[in-house]
Amino acid sequence: MSAEQRQGIRQMLARTPTGSEPKNIEEQREGFATMMSAFQVPAGVTRTDIELAGRRAVLVEPVRDARPGTMLYFHGGSFALGSPETAMSLTAHLVLRTGMRAISFDYRLAPEDPFPAGVKDCFAAYRELLEQGNTAESIAVVGDSAGGAMSVTTALSARNQGVPVPACVVCFSPGGDPMRSGGSLVSRRDRDPFFTPEALQASGERYLAGANPDTEMASPISRADMSGFPPLLVQVGGDEILLDDSVHLTERAREADVDVVLDVTAGVPHVFQAFVDHLDEAGLALDRAALFITQHVARG
Amino acid sequence: MSAEQRQGIRQMLARTPTGSEPKNIEEQREGFATMMSAFQVPAGVTRTDIELAGRRAVLVEPVRDARPGTMLYFHGGSFALGSPETAMSLTAHLVLRTGMRAISFDYRLAPEDPFPAGVKDCFAAYRELLEQGNTAESIAVVGDSAGGAMSVTTALSARNQGVPVPACVVCFSPGGDPMRSGGSLVSRRDRDPFFTPEALQASGERYLAGANPDTEMASPISRADMSGFPPLLVQVGGDEILLDDSVHLTERAREADVDVVLDVTAGVPHVFQAFVDHLDEAGLALDRAALFITQHVARG
Repeated sequence: MSAEQRQGIRQMLARTPTGSEPKNIEEQREGFATMMSAFQVPAGVTRTDIELAGRRAVLVEPVRDARPGTMLYFHGGSFALGSPETAMSLTAHLVLRTGMRAISFDYRLAPEDPFPAGVKDCFAAYRELLEQGNTAESIAVVGDSAGGAMSVTTALSARNQGVPVPACVVCFSPGGDPMRSGGSLVSRRDRDPFFTPEALQASGERYLAGANPDTEMASPISRADMSGFPPLLVQVGGDEILLDDSVHLTERAREADVDVVLDVTAGVPHVFQAFVDHLDEAGLALDRAALFITQHVARG
Repeated sequence: MSAEQRQGIRQMLARTPTGSEPKNIEEQREGFATMMSAFQVPAGVTRTDIELAGRRAVLVEPVRDARPGTMLYFHGGSFALGSPETAMSLTAHLVLRTGMRAISFDYRLAPEDPFPAGVKDCFAAYRELLEQGNTAESIAVVGDSAGGAMSVTTALSARNQGVPVPACVVCFSPGGDPMRSGGSLVSRRDRDPFFTPEALQASGERYLAGANPDTEMASPISRADMSGFPPLLVQVGGDEILLDDSVHLTERAREADVDVVLDVTAGVPHVFQAFVDHLDEAGLALDRAALFITQHVARG
């Protein structure tokens, strides 16, 4: 039934105009915000600007049927674009499906603040939630794309520093390694409507700004020791050149004896869950993510 | 919290006496039935002996909160042991969680009826459900261990013969290839409380009885072309030497553009879902399987 929907998404994306002029970072950010604003924020949540670890964040709460627990959300945008607002549709849909509040966090971005600024911000946000009295068992760390990488480095940082790890980590289409390789860079090249290997390479260089990529925090997907990592759910689209990042991350988790789910929806693009209003599979995937989160976040 | 439960399961299995005398097939079947009878069938279902495709089957229905749809269930037992009764605890737990009826099917077993007798029986059972007026969209095919392989070959047979494929396939710890290889045969050898590579080899030879293993139906995990396969969920324990069968099956599905979820629970054995009364992760996994099934089985 939804083969037509998947095809419709492909055609919609194929029509997206891509300017021929290289854009500066502010133009890129505006373009990304415009693109993401097409995804409607559903009714049934309230949004409040708050501060967390010295940075802006947005608290997203369900109007009704609230349950205990917090999702700490890290938006995507290639480590350089995006904000809590650009991921608000996805965040709000998760809030409605789980009944849990989310805090979407505005971490520092490249090129102004390259690696490891964002990594440090995201872990500081998690640690401040603990200092506010939230238990680690009550927190799910969730992110899409570059924010998926941030969710992984946040849990790794907690483990490395002897801080309790969150209840679980959920990544949508994580893009984790600035200098990546992998079969899907080739096999999905002609299908991916968003990324080319060259564009990923360029955004990776912008993020690292000369830092060594060969470290756990810079390249969590290919370098992380995942021992002691909390239960992990990774959802990814089958048409992504980033597909193998998800495959490799979950392989490492499996080898480190981590509870791990790799959930692939075929024929759909990067962060396909955003298309929840147009694609049945997006809602189904979000329902599976919501079950995973509520299974692992303690109710007490 | 459940680290203790996982450890408890390990200790329980380590105490299981294993006779030093080689047993004949009837003794093996009795031992398997005794072992599996330790898993309680929950209240809230009715069981009725029926006939399907000329073989015995057990219809398992929820006493309340029924919803449309049918799970066609294939039990495990190394292609030579087991019956609908030995998997009844698992089957009934799925019926309670989905609200759907299950039909657990008594396919022919080796050594009396080696490959491809069981494969043919299972596909005949599926086809008869269609002939009875059930739509393919209303049927989930589910199996554990060797029954997981049967669920895969049933969907492959449907595709190959131009019969509509089921709504989805769910495998618990599928053991698909009689002549298998894979890293987990080595890496999990000291942890797996049920199987050794030598025992798998012996049961594979008993099942094939001289048939060529190098075919899609004999070795679906390493030989199947998965194109056109329905959405697939594979759940597996991290302590299994069969782990890589699940990994390889889902890799093949991914490469064939199939919607596919690989769901690994670390530190638990083969078909750990059976331990639902003793292990929180078993119930959580069954809840995820039930969501997957109800997402894909049409309500109409």
